[in-house]
Amino acid sequence: MTLRHLAAATAAVCGLYAAGADKPAYLDESLPLEQRVEDALSRMTLDEKIAMCHAEGKFASAGVPRLGIPDLWMSDGPHGVRAEINWNDWGSAGHTNDSITAFPALTALAATWNPELSMAYGNAIGEEALYREKDMMLGPGVNIYRTPLNGRNFEYMGEDPYLASVLVVPYIKGMQQNGVSACVKHYALNNQERWRGHINVELSDRALNEIYLPAFKAAVEDGEVWSIMGSYNKIRGQHACHNDLMLNKILKDDWKFDGVVVTDWGGCHDTREAALYGLDLEMGSYTNGLTSESAFTYDDYYLANPYKEMLQKGEVPMSTLDDKVRRLLRLNFRTAMNRNKPFGSIHSPEHYAVAEAIGDEAIVLLKNAPVTKKGAPLLPIDPSRFGSILVVGDNAVRMLNEGGGSSELKVKDMVSPLDGMKSLYGDKVKFAQGYKAGRPMYDAVEEIPQSVTDSLRAEAVEMARNADLVVIFGGLNKNTRQDCEAADRIEYGLPFGQPELIAAIEAVNPNTVVVLLSGNAVEMPWEAKIPAIVQGWYLGTMGGQSLANVLSGKVNPSGKLPFSFPVKLEDCGAHSFGDICYPGDSINEKYLEDILVGYRWHDTKKIAPKYSFGHGLSYTDFTYGKAELSSKTIAADGSITLSIPVTNTGKSAGKEVVQLYIGDDKASVFRPLKELKGFSKISLAPGETKNVTFTITPDDLKFYDETTKGWIAEPGKFTAYVGSSSTDIRAKATFDYK
Amino acid sequence: MTLRHLAAATAAVCGLYAAGADKPAYLDESLPLEQRVEDALSRMTLDEKIAMCHAEGKFASAGVPRLGIPDLWMSDGPHGVRAEINWNDWGSAGHTNDSITAFPALTALAATWNPELSMAYGNAIGEEALYREKDMMLGPGVNIYRTPLNGRNFEYMGEDPYLASVLVVPYIKGMQQNGVSACVKHYALNNQERWRGHINVELSDRALNEIYLPAFKAAVEDGEVWSIMGSYNKIRGQHACHNDLMLNKILKDDWKFDGVVVTDWGGCHDTREAALYGLDLEMGSYTNGLTSESAFTYDDYYLANPYKEMLQKGEVPMSTLDDKVRRLLRLNFRTAMNRNKPFGSIHSPEHYAVAEAIGDEAIVLLKNAPVTKKGAPLLPIDPSRFGSILVVGDNAVRMLNEGGGSSELKVKDMVSPLDGMKSLYGDKVKFAQGYKAGRPMYDAVEEIPQSVTDSLRAEAVEMARNADLVVIFGGLNKNTRQDCEAADRIEYGLPFGQPELIAAIEAVNPNTVVVLLSGNAVEMPWEAKIPAIVQGWYLGTMGGQSLANVLSGKVNPSGKLPFSFPVKLEDCGAHSFGDICYPGDSINEKYLEDILVGYRWHDTKKIAPKYSFGHGLSYTDFTYGKAELSSKTIAADGSITLSIPVTNTGKSAGKEVVQLYIGDDKASVFRPLKELKGFSKISLAPGETKNVTFTITPDDLKFYDETTKGWIAEPGKFTAYVGSSSTDIRAKATFDYK
Repeated sequence: MTLRHLAAATAAVCGLYAAGADKPAYLDESLPLEQRVEDALSRMTLDEKIAMCHAEGKFASAGVPRLGIPDLWMSDGPHGVRAEINWNDWGSAGHTNDSITAFPALTALAATWNPELSMAYGNAIGEEALYREKDMMLGPGVNIYRTPLNGRNFEYMGEDPYLASVLVVPYIKGMQQNGVSACVKHYALNNQERWRGHINVELSDRALNEIYLPAFKAAVEDGEVWSIMGSYNKIRGQHACHNDLMLNKILKDDWKFDGVVVTDWGGCHDTREAALYGLDLEMGSYTNGLTSESAFTYDDYYLANPYKEMLQKGEVPMSTLDDKVRRLLRLNFRTAMNRNKPFGSIHSPEHYAVAEAIGDEAIVLLKNAPVTKKGAPLLPIDPSRFGSILVVGDNAVRMLNEGGGSSELKVKDMVSPLDGMKSLYGDKVKFAQGYKAGRPMYDAVEEIPQSVTDSLRAEAVEMARNADLVVIFGGLNKNTRQDCEAADRIEYGLPFGQPELIAAIEAVNPNTVVVLLSGNAVEMPWEAKIPAIVQGWYLGTMGGQSLANVLSGKVNPSGKLPFSFPVKLEDCGAHSFGDICYPGDSINEKYLEDILVGYRWHDTKKIAPKYSFGHGLSYTDFTYGKAELSSKTIAADGSITLSIPVTNTGKSAGKEVVQLYIGDDKASVFRPLKELKGFSKISLAPGETKNVTFTITPDDLKFYDETTKGWIAEPGKFTAYVGSSSTDIRAKATFDYK
Repeated sequence: MTLRHLAAATAAVCGLYAAGADKPAYLDESLPLEQRVEDALSRMTLDEKIAMCHAEGKFASAGVPRLGIPDLWMSDGPHGVRAEINWNDWGSAGHTNDSITAFPALTALAATWNPELSMAYGNAIGEEALYREKDMMLGPGVNIYRTPLNGRNFEYMGEDPYLASVLVVPYIKGMQQNGVSACVKHYALNNQERWRGHINVELSDRALNEIYLPAFKAAVEDGEVWSIMGSYNKIRGQHACHNDLMLNKILKDDWKFDGVVVTDWGGCHDTREAALYGLDLEMGSYTNGLTSESAFTYDDYYLANPYKEMLQKGEVPMSTLDDKVRRLLRLNFRTAMNRNKPFGSIHSPEHYAVAEAIGDEAIVLLKNAPVTKKGAPLLPIDPSRFGSILVVGDNAVRMLNEGGGSSELKVKDMVSPLDGMKSLYGDKVKFAQGYKAGRPMYDAVEEIPQSVTDSLRAEAVEMARNADLVVIFGGLNKNTRQDCEAADRIEYGLPFGQPELIAAIEAVNPNTVVVLLSGNAVEMPWEAKIPAIVQGWYLGTMGGQSLANVLSGKVNPSGKLPFSFPVKLEDCGAHSFGDICYPGDSINEKYLEDILVGYRWHDTKKIAPKYSFGHGLSYTDFTYGKAELSSKTIAADGSITLSIPVTNTGKSAGKEVVQLYIGDDKASVFRPLKELKGFSKISLAPGETKNVTFTITPDDLKFYDETTKGWIAEPGKFTAYVGSSSTDIRAKATFDYK
């Protein structure tokens, strides 16, 4: 008998072991999600349920191995897929296949004011996550920019809840269409890094609902996000990661969130609260007061054995566990077990193009004045005008993807600003470091000797004296106590002696451009003397290319500031009420500026910022016509349309962000002068006019009423402000709400 | 304008970034595989092609990140999915989600003589691989058992090419139906571990084709295996991993293999040969004479930069690269990019049941004689007969999943023999270690002081004196120089003073059962005095359970030896021609025993083994009737049927492996007395008779003709031998081939 005969004879029997011969309901993709969830839940043991509710590794949580429900793999976010670290500590796992595309930081995305680019961002990072076999990306972050000292502002989308809301939704949709969960963070009020692990935030219901929650609400209700990350801080006395008000009442009851609440890493502090107050997945804990990973096992987590004991003793109901597991199963079916997802890709030309497109539209031209009354502005840089260009600054060559905390990235490629300048201007470009900033460090700052600083400055000044044009790439970096998590900035000004460097260079060469790479506003005592200033953010892999695109005029700048630049720190609302308002007394912090965050403060208190929210120049000029309303009154169930013609009156094609603000001219409660309620980014050829229209509904007129705990619009007169920034208002129109 | 309006307005534009909006051919699963391969190939750059041909980590090779073609993840094999190791060294990665089911070693699977169980084995391990996110499992191994000194025999399927062929095919099919590639190894002639990296094997074309290749051929032609691993050794002067005869001529031209040839880890030695002689994927190399992972990068691999240089200089044709990449893409589409594969599971009750079922049928009852002429055999153990049972032996409690080399496993659960005995016999069971074996070590043996050995033996003997029954679990273990890769055994006898221990125990208590746990035959000078002997293999997670099942009679043993147990080493063919035949002179080795491997040697040379190939007793008795042939002659294009009734004449249900051997009574070339050509495992109730039939075709009569380089059957008389083992022949029938 030959082998072939015997094999055929056994084939029928072997069919018993065919894959998927007997498919249970939870594996049947044709069934509704909830039915699959209930089926899987009904098959699970207590231990299997408990295992799903806490970490099994630094970035992994358990599936159900027996049932073939896969583990969940997570990764930091939000600007790219982080390199692989070890299973149980933060050390590099040394992989060589985990270099990726670094996308612009979220402040830069916000500065594009372009939801389409946000969709492209989410999609691209979702594709990179897929290729790296991640089920969930820890981002985006939408904490509101409350103070320029917050070390983590660069990871967020600015100071305005509407802008952040509009941009977070397509990011989520773009990512999640790949079967990768976004995890919106840090919910909520993690508006500073100082004492983030325990500071207790007290604020009004209005500030909570009008300022700090809208972007999260949009992420849940419009973005349909599958997971959300609790923040480290306390809110009204309870840690945010197990907070009855924030998680049970607002997120799950009011907003109908059906996804998973995950802790920030180490954000869980109590088993009973975690069981009862809305946490679903505990990650990164250091239990028993221990801070070393090796000192305990994952079974010691609050939602591991201690939870099991409380459940078995009846101290917390079993329904709390089933609710968590249903959510975790839902997340798993949507991601890890989603068979229809694509395979993704990393560091592809398409992703580089997305990164570059975002960078191109993110860069904000803050100032571009002629050096002399008769002269032309320095930008865009005309090579026929400048025979030699000196590039100065540590940030012209620094790997700004490194450091910063959890958003650090290991890039496949990185175009530095110096690379970008050389690619355009070749041998005309010379380089002087100008200042030294030390290497990025997580919890310390490398000290640079004064002699080194002096020497570098002297060299740069000497070279600047003989250059036709100087472009300084300065700003902050990802060192701790700058744009970096876990600590706040220690000064509003530029570090490493940059103000002195800028002044010294300007003194020998007025043809000086300053490009700030940062995720925060900085103090600019030198601003009046510098004719051209650019806010260049952290732009990732293609950053140097985008900067060169804009500086050269290859791309006409169209970025707008997503937050205000106060002249001095005291001009910021959060810094106007003493330490209890920021940073708090180490126990409590009171948001005494209330709803007056950012431009709402500057507007209402009539304190002009150095650069306004929504500000950003172009190499062309835009002229606004008259704002026309479809009606002078708006009914409770109605809407009106505002239209305004905008014309490119300059010589180059460009994009403009037309901004709509609405103010309640008289209200029973205190309201800001005006609030952003719409914007439209339009592209105009020279001479072209477009009519921009906005639909205004009663929702755009509402405030949060603390008495009724709901949103109301009061009848009366409102003003619509249309402008090129929050302070550059080009047209107004008033209407009545009846 | 509310957020909802704006989101809707941009939805159309955002559709541009929808997943899969523009699907290229290689991602279109509805297209034929070859068309997808060609499409992907046409899009790849030289660097991307080169990157696919070599490792990027210890167990990973690159996909095409830009095109979204995933990396390939591999794992040892073959008895379970190995624990995660570091990216670039062999240290544990410390994961806590990688404990799995240890399945019985492949010698045990072979001892079941049950293709259905092999299918179940492959399927279960495929499911575990899926859950662990592996695309390719490095197994099974089908090297022929040539000498009991080979340290790696436990990973293979015994001494007979037909048995291995029949069993390897369903293993592959069971695994690959999960979208996980099997990788049949080690191709070929890696029949010893000593000097494995360079020993040059010389053998006849007949030995190659009749003995050493059939199982690989079956894996390719009948199993349609997707990958195959080249071995470390040389064959006729050329390393097996880049061997023109073995890879280009036989594997790819003759057998039409369309999959990937991967090196054993570090098996590549030359860029030009690797380019030209059939290698596709280079793994685990130490190039430049360096042996530390940190001393070089993956770009230094033979098939990395050096290959690129040769290609660019035209020293090897670009077609060699395209052929490799086509194969790698094919493998990728079949595994990593197979969207229809299930999710798998690990350490599930179903997998434990498979492991136990295999163990149950693998255990071989070698001997079960009455202790006294009038008495009953000791087995199965009747608890009413024995008031106390002493379990003796290091192997009764040892984790035999540890050590052994690449087949080491990290188990979730492990039932030891002592656990199994206690579960059945409770407090009747006492334990004495009896001997100490030291901990498993990869490249050294822990020395045990004589005083410890003496003391443990004295204790066991003293306890044995007072026991009603003694069960010794001895044998080998996974220490280096026993059943472990990278070295061969240094003695045929049992180590650690076990022969003396067995003799001393038997001297005080004749009611002694010896259970050997090993993957190799051992010398048994004590055999005549021991009434009951069991071969128990390495059975993995459920091993103790299976052993208890068989020892207690809960399961009637049905395992049959897949290799012979020679009385002494010199009785083995490979040890009958001096060092040049085994282990070689360190440079060359000549297989002078030629085709006479295993029972072919014992039969033909009339050297009786201690236990024969195919031997295995039952607790019941099987009586064979007369063999009937459908015809006394067989034509060149015909076949005949042999049928034989087999009756269970004992008192318990049982399974018997009815074996068909065929001998060429007179041939123009030297042939073995007989060769296995068929077997059938049948289940019989007491008193039941089944008629077993075998179809005999001319293929079963053929030998490999070195002159014509093909298989021929010569007209003449043949004998069919039907038996319960290769030496326990119960019926014969002769026929003519015309």
